[in-house]
Amino acid sequence: MKSFREEIWFNIPSRRAFVLLTPKLEECVKKSGIQEGLLLCNAMHITASVFINDNEAGLHEDFERWLERLAPEKPYSQYKHNVGEDNADAHLKRTIMGREVVIAVTGGKLDLGPWEQVFYGEFDGKRRKRVLVKIIGE
Amino acid sequence: MKSFREEIWFNIPSRRAFVLLTPKLEECVKKSGIQEGLLLCNAMHITASVFINDNEAGLHEDFERWLERLAPEKPYSQYKHNVGEDNADAHLKRTIMGREVVIAVTGGKLDLGPWEQVFYGEFDGKRRKRVLVKIIGE
Amino acid sequence: MKSFREEIWFNIPSRRAFVLLTPKLEECVKKSGIQEGLLLCNAMHITASVFINDNEAGLHEDFERWLERLAPEKPYSQYKHNVGEDNADAHLKRTIMGREVVIAVTGGKLDLGPWEQVFYGEFDGKRRKRVLVKIIGE
Repeated sequence: MKSFREEIWFNIPSRRAFVLLTPKLEECVKKSGIQEGLLLCNAMHITASVFINDNEAGLHEDFERWLERLAPEKPYSQYKHNVGEDNADAHLKRTIMGREVVIAVTGGKLDLGPWEQVFYGEFDGKRRKRVLVKIIGE
Repeated sequence: MKSFREEIWFNIPSRRAFVLLTPKLEECVKKSGIQEGLLLCNAMHITASVFINDNEAGLHEDFERWLERLAPEKPYSQYKHNVGEDNADAHLKRTIMGREVVIAVTGGKLDLGPWEQVFYGEFDGKRRKRVLVKIIGE
Repeated sequence: MKSFREEIWFNIPSRRAFVLLTPKLEECVKKSGIQEGLLLCNAMHITASVFINDNEAGLHEDFERWLERLAPEKPYSQYKHNVGEDNADAHLKRTIMGREVVIAVTGGKLDLGPWEQVFYGEFDGKRRKRVLVKIIGE
């Protein structure tokens, strides 16, 4: 069995953003030399997300508006977590979007459907944060 | 290490439905010959879901009504994604229900709790779509 | 390839609670002797959750209030599942929080970010329930 580990770092200038990760994960699979296995990609921070959906700007706006409806940022005072912090909503938003994805590796490539794209979801940016990529297989 | 891969195809006649997957996954484990490992089952489409919950018709009606409340299908005009499409709600519903499940394989069988059943969740049907089953182990 | 399996049991005296799991998972990794691999931790019950977030009491209160807003427990009559049962809301709450987490094992340890803590989320307690820990690797 082989294993591979890499961190991918971000420093998003806004509070919230979605960043396409698929090309970086494809590089990781290539570097790992693994032909058949599983790839885990997870946010290492609890106010960020890794998820799979469509690479379409209109949908990303829909996600932003929808998450604000389900878990609004303001008023900060509505959350008990916001004592010296203001990011309770980011913890809730990331819960909806998910911490991690697990992707099959087949024939040395990410085994994704035709429209599947992997994204980093930032919900409390303006600082350095990272995701973990771990691949095991042969 | 052994690995196994199979696609399971669907063509759901309605826009939304839940389809029991557990027996098909049990067959996959048997065919794989893997005794100890991990099974990944994920939708390969971004308007569908694979999730684990109860095989109970009343609960499935509750899920349908609840998802419509959290991410309503209509009016289509409420979503920016719906330019030439009408399935933005399906992307949101699938986000709530999840893209994938990872299940332990133990003693050559799916290692599920007594009431755990795996389902395919369709949120934009009336066309051919599929899930991926990948198993790695020994 | 090595594999390891363990069940962790709970008997939560209240309907809902969050219980820290990280130290128990660290023990599992140690016992397994696995240095590089993947750990799956999932609820074996469909009204419970395993998730990763902050170990902060205020945030846990926010989660409780937020889940009650998205999927209220009462009135029981609002759910079709509640025929002889009263836990439909628990199935929905667990869907938001997630069934499982997959965590990398690196150098014989859980490969978590600085604030990542693993929790068991109980949404229909007052009875014996369990989570599964499965680790594969080398």
